Amino acid sequence: MLYFRNDYSEGACPQVLDALADTNLIPTAGYGTDQFCAAAADAIRSLCEAPEAQVHFLVGGTQVNKTAIGAFLRPYEAVIAADTGHICVHETGAIEQNGHKILALPVQDGKLTAGLVRAAVERHCDEHMVLPRLVYISNTTEVGTVYSLSELTALSGCCRELGLLLYCDGARLASAMTVEGADTSFADYARLCDAFTIGGTKNGLLFGEALVLTNPALFPHFRHAMKQQGAILAKGRLLGVQFDAVLRDGLYLQLARHANAMAAKLRQGLLELGYSMAVNSPSNQIFPILTPTQEERLREECAFEVQSRDDHGVCVRFVTSWATRGEDVDALLKFMEENA
Amino acid sequence: MLYFRNDYSEGACPQVLDALADTNLIPTAGYGTDQFCAAAADAIRSLCEAPEAQVHFLVGGTQVNKTAIGAFLRPYEAVIAADTGHICVHETGAIEQNGHKILALPVQDGKLTAGLVRAAVERHCDEHMVLPRLVYISNTTEVGTVYSLSELTALSGCCRELGLLLYCDGARLASAMTVEGADTSFADYARLCDAFTIGGTKNGLLFGEALVLTNPALFPHFRHAMKQQGAILAKGRLLGVQFDAVLRDGLYLQLARHANAMAAKLRQGLLELGYSMAVNSPSNQIFPILTPTQEERLREECAFEVQSRDDHGVCVRFVTSWATRGEDVDALLKFMEENA
Amino acid sequence: MLYFRNDYSEGACPQVLDALADTNLIPTAGYGTDQFCAAAADAIRSLCEAPEAQVHFLVGGTQVNKTAIGAFLRPYEAVIAADTGHICVHETGAIEQNGHKILALPVQDGKLTAGLVRAAVERHCDEHMVLPRLVYISNTTEVGTVYSLSELTALSGCCRELGLLLYCDGARLASAMTVEGADTSFADYARLCDAFTIGGTKNGLLFGEALVLTNPALFPHFRHAMKQQGAILAKGRLLGVQFDAVLRDGLYLQLARHANAMAAKLRQGLLELGYSMAVNSPSNQIFPILTPTQEERLREECAFEVQSRDDHGVCVRFVTSWATRGEDVDALLKFMEENA
Amino acid sequence: MLYFRNDYSEGACPQVLDALADTNLIPTAGYGTDQFCAAAADAIRSLCEAPEAQVHFLVGGTQVNKTAIGAFLRPYEAVIAADTGHICVHETGAIEQNGHKILALPVQDGKLTAGLVRAAVERHCDEHMVLPRLVYISNTTEVGTVYSLSELTALSGCCRELGLLLYCDGARLASAMTVEGADTSFADYARLCDAFTIGGTKNGLLFGEALVLTNPALFPHFRHAMKQQGAILAKGRLLGVQFDAVLRDGLYLQLARHANAMAAKLRQGLLELGYSMAVNSPSNQIFPILTPTQEERLREECAFEVQSRDDHGVCVRFVTSWATRGEDVDALLKFMEENA
Repeated sequence: MLYFRNDYSEGACPQVLDALADTNLIPTAGYGTDQFCAAAADAIRSLCEAPEAQVHFLVGGTQVNKTAIGAFLRPYEAVIAADTGHICVHETGAIEQNGHKILALPVQDGKLTAGLVRAAVERHCDEHMVLPRLVYISNTTEVGTVYSLSELTALSGCCRELGLLLYCDGARLASAMTVEGADTSFADYARLCDAFTIGGTKNGLLFGEALVLTNPALFPHFRHAMKQQGAILAKGRLLGVQFDAVLRDGLYLQLARHANAMAAKLRQGLLELGYSMAVNSPSNQIFPILTPTQEERLREECAFEVQSRDDHGVCVRFVTSWATRGEDVDALLKFMEENA
Repeated sequence: MLYFRNDYSEGACPQVLDALADTNLIPTAGYGTDQFCAAAADAIRSLCEAPEAQVHFLVGGTQVNKTAIGAFLRPYEAVIAADTGHICVHETGAIEQNGHKILALPVQDGKLTAGLVRAAVERHCDEHMVLPRLVYISNTTEVGTVYSLSELTALSGCCRELGLLLYCDGARLASAMTVEGADTSFADYARLCDAFTIGGTKNGLLFGEALVLTNPALFPHFRHAMKQQGAILAKGRLLGVQFDAVLRDGLYLQLARHANAMAAKLRQGLLELGYSMAVNSPSNQIFPILTPTQEERLREECAFEVQSRDDHGVCVRFVTSWATRGEDVDALLKFMEENA
Repeated sequence: MLYFRNDYSEGACPQVLDALADTNLIPTAGYGTDQFCAAAADAIRSLCEAPEAQVHFLVGGTQVNKTAIGAFLRPYEAVIAADTGHICVHETGAIEQNGHKILALPVQDGKLTAGLVRAAVERHCDEHMVLPRLVYISNTTEVGTVYSLSELTALSGCCRELGLLLYCDGARLASAMTVEGADTSFADYARLCDAFTIGGTKNGLLFGEALVLTNPALFPHFRHAMKQQGAILAKGRLLGVQFDAVLRDGLYLQLARHANAMAAKLRQGLLELGYSMAVNSPSNQIFPILTPTQEERLREECAFEVQSRDDHGVCVRFVTSWATRGEDVDALLKFMEENA
Repeated sequence: MLYFRNDYSEGACPQVLDALADTNLIPTAGYGTDQFCAAAADAIRSLCEAPEAQVHFLVGGTQVNKTAIGAFLRPYEAVIAADTGHICVHETGAIEQNGHKILALPVQDGKLTAGLVRAAVERHCDEHMVLPRLVYISNTTEVGTVYSLSELTALSGCCRELGLLLYCDGARLASAMTVEGADTSFADYARLCDAFTIGGTKNGLLFGEALVLTNPALFPHFRHAMKQQGAILAKGRLLGVQFDAVLRDGLYLQLARHANAMAAKLRQGLLELGYSMAVNSPSNQIFPILTPTQEERLREECAFEVQSRDDHGVCVRFVTSWATRGEDVDALLKFMEENA
């Protein structure tokens, strides 16, 4: 069975597993107050060129979005997001459970623009409506697209002008920073966002998202917010050890480059075979359109997800990862050729 | 440096780490819908003699308490707990963050009784007061004491009579089931409680709490509640693999027996040296009383926590675990003898 | 100055004020447990032909929506509503503050259909998404349109088939039941909805919304939910006295008939003058389109609200009420004629 | 039947009712943005000698406590209160429903002290515990006692030193300011508290609590918080009209003086008859101790509430108000004499 379902189908990359084994019996203080977390946080601050940033380690993506956004907002404040945003659809109302409305703006390519944000703010003009306060973006987006540096810069400028916080969900940040033509760096996110995450789960760790806070207004008592959300891991060391392992020697970006390369090969092959793509996504998620018959046959050979279905066909999603093998891409392309 | 600070100072027991390494590259479906979680859930249902029970795997203790209690209650319903209960003090108001008041009853030994519960219910008689609906207990308790089978049975009977749910926080359930004279089994908790947890974090896993729901009224849509709380791990397999590893061949209880034996040796030694205990706790947490001078000296040799301070002395907490070595107990006793 | 801003610009109709004065010094029990509330609730049960219904009296519209929906849903359950719905826009995220996502469906005429509801339910298929559980409608809608009996019946049937609760916000229910061609009665709402409100604030009371619960699953402990939301009025008698006053001798519908007649006269007059309407609304809210110049001049003569502005003109809202005088309608029409 | 059950058994004092009738047909803008609310707010700012204060008008006591405290706190912040505090017991967990833990401190006389507050703050030392942030007091307290100016000053000083907000629930503030020996004024509350309420419901209004915010950090977007809680009355004018009526010519304090005088007469009479009091309360609530037989007989003649029962007798509560008649006090005393 081929596996293109997602980028968290396997455990961890070998270096992460080795690091966990090597440090396993060293006793440490709990809750992320250990030396491994300190080292990983330092590594992140250094990569971000943000020596004053707060860095926190959490276990999962929904958890970090829920904890951070819940901590940042006052009760009547709202989030602006693209309607494809992970928090809008696939987190079971986690943001609303903390009391906050999400203003979901319809977009085609998964990306917000300054114009969209500005118009949403203007529509919310008095106390009978929620107060927009935070802009949520994902990079890469949920449809595999990537914000360029100029897009991020424009959005950040708009947010600062309007008094909005800019939060970037970086569950797939490594992929965004390593696609062909990528022009953003850790330091750019630190400079342009008020807070962002550096995803581990989808890039070679067993689990873990690093949350970087650069706006000092967000610093006070953030660990209280984490604990209240059940988001401080007792053996917090596990997060420090894992991040430390991938942040050394560029491994973190190297893993993403591999995933992106596998996706590029697959995309290129499919285009050559005449398949069309629902979205032009340069990262590790691609969205070819199959016929229902093709989809049905493929199910017997390959694990994947269906993004949508309509009269034009079935839009499927193929995801590659640090663990994807070239031979599996070849096998998938061969199957797609035989069933073209 | 000696380490008696807690039972989650190290990583995982070797069998758990091996199981993670052995299964690392097997691709699986995400979110705990994999074969390893299925196997571990089956093992738990079997141990609990509860073939119909729902079993869910979550990452941490605060997370599982918050998720379960939040899912079980309607907005105006309240929790009854001992004032020493973990949810009352050390979870940063996580239960309240979900909207529920905790009625914290003053107790000396960490344990609720049917009489205390009944009186609390009687005090809440109309719609101007919260409606008590769930009784939270911990076993072992936060002060190391253990509920006997007859105590649990009495509490369960009272709860059923009064229409209350009984929830047992089993972060240290293994210790409770293996202290000298222990008379409760997995099946007893399944039979007497509506829901309970089987703790992994404090008994040899990297992390993980298994939540067992035996009351069918609590089943519907529980995974929705988990996801909303950010409490479904993407690589859920990690929880299944770990629980599967310790539930095989009795390892889970064996690890706790070791921890209890180390604590018993330490307690016995301290009593022989003339130290007194603040609580008579038979499990893996003990609470000797030191002088301020003793405490200060000990800090240089040993990691531990202070429970309380007053004119009678300093009540410290020593915790043993699956990882505690007999030689470290000897070393601590030697120190305590020299400083008696 | 003419007043067509809303239907709550004045105090109460004379009968209501008299009833309050007449009963003012009679001491009663608090919190709505008095004889006046009992009588008003009986009157409502009788009008609704629902002898088993629970009737509760609350002060305001946002309060009753928030309290009822919050009490009915479990944390991960969501509301389906038209995107024009009052709860979607003009209640400052009150539903979300209680933890619930609203799935806002785009509509043109303010009304949901069975087809829209069914499609929304089908899009929410697993635990990574919220669980649709309640359908919120308003009658009249926020754009002045009215559900017919057949529309309500279809919606109700769809909800029951799909296991959804149907909740009708009746802030302007009296208007809906008295427009020309209206074919719904109190008993229809009681039969087709699980819960609905009978609005007082916008139909001659100082304040007050009656909430009618007909689905017995919603009965238990509802007053606990009210109290927790700060929604039990200490002098609850005031609500009973007022509702009792208008429900006697058909006054409640008579007040709405007057408001509708005033709106009809205004609408007819404007159409004859050549003005067009943004929505074909038969009730006490009408939405003519003016030029910016007309709007500007009108501001000096009349209080009203602007619904929207675009290149086609300014859509304004005129609202009539029990207190609207025929001579004021004439004066407004005269102005509109002079400025046509 | 005599009525000593509470101070909200009747409607409004005549001056309030007259003011409502006089202004009834004047159309105004909604939601408290009218001229009557503006005048009442000005009157309050003037009485408080706080020209910069924000004044908001809400309908009820639980509503204002819930709205204000919910708006002031961040999610992990907690309230310190006396365990007799209204928010601790008789608001059905309204504060917790907004996500905040209340640290309820055991007291005998209903009053917090700087020492109690300081100790509570010291017990909450890290992120595993909630962060105390607001001190809630009631004046008069729920057991009829009254804070003196020196007590309030000490508490205020302690709060400012520790970075805590001081909030005074003034549901019975008028009674507190008019008991014999009272030494506090509106201006003192404005100077010493960050926010406090001026109660109307229990002092002659149909309903209404004025919330005074003096700490500018609490100002931004407070009306958003009100609307989200369903706490902006559509016909907000009703609150302005009523407060305006009682704040003119000292009526507000005069009504309370009458209530206090009636209570003093009753208390003095009961003491002379040999009854003892459970609490030495100088305000409009008194707490005599009866025998079970006395209580039973009294039920046939008089409406009142039972505070508590134990082996020493039945502690009942008699409450007087602006509406209490001297002849009713005489009648009650006569009954108590005959049954002494």
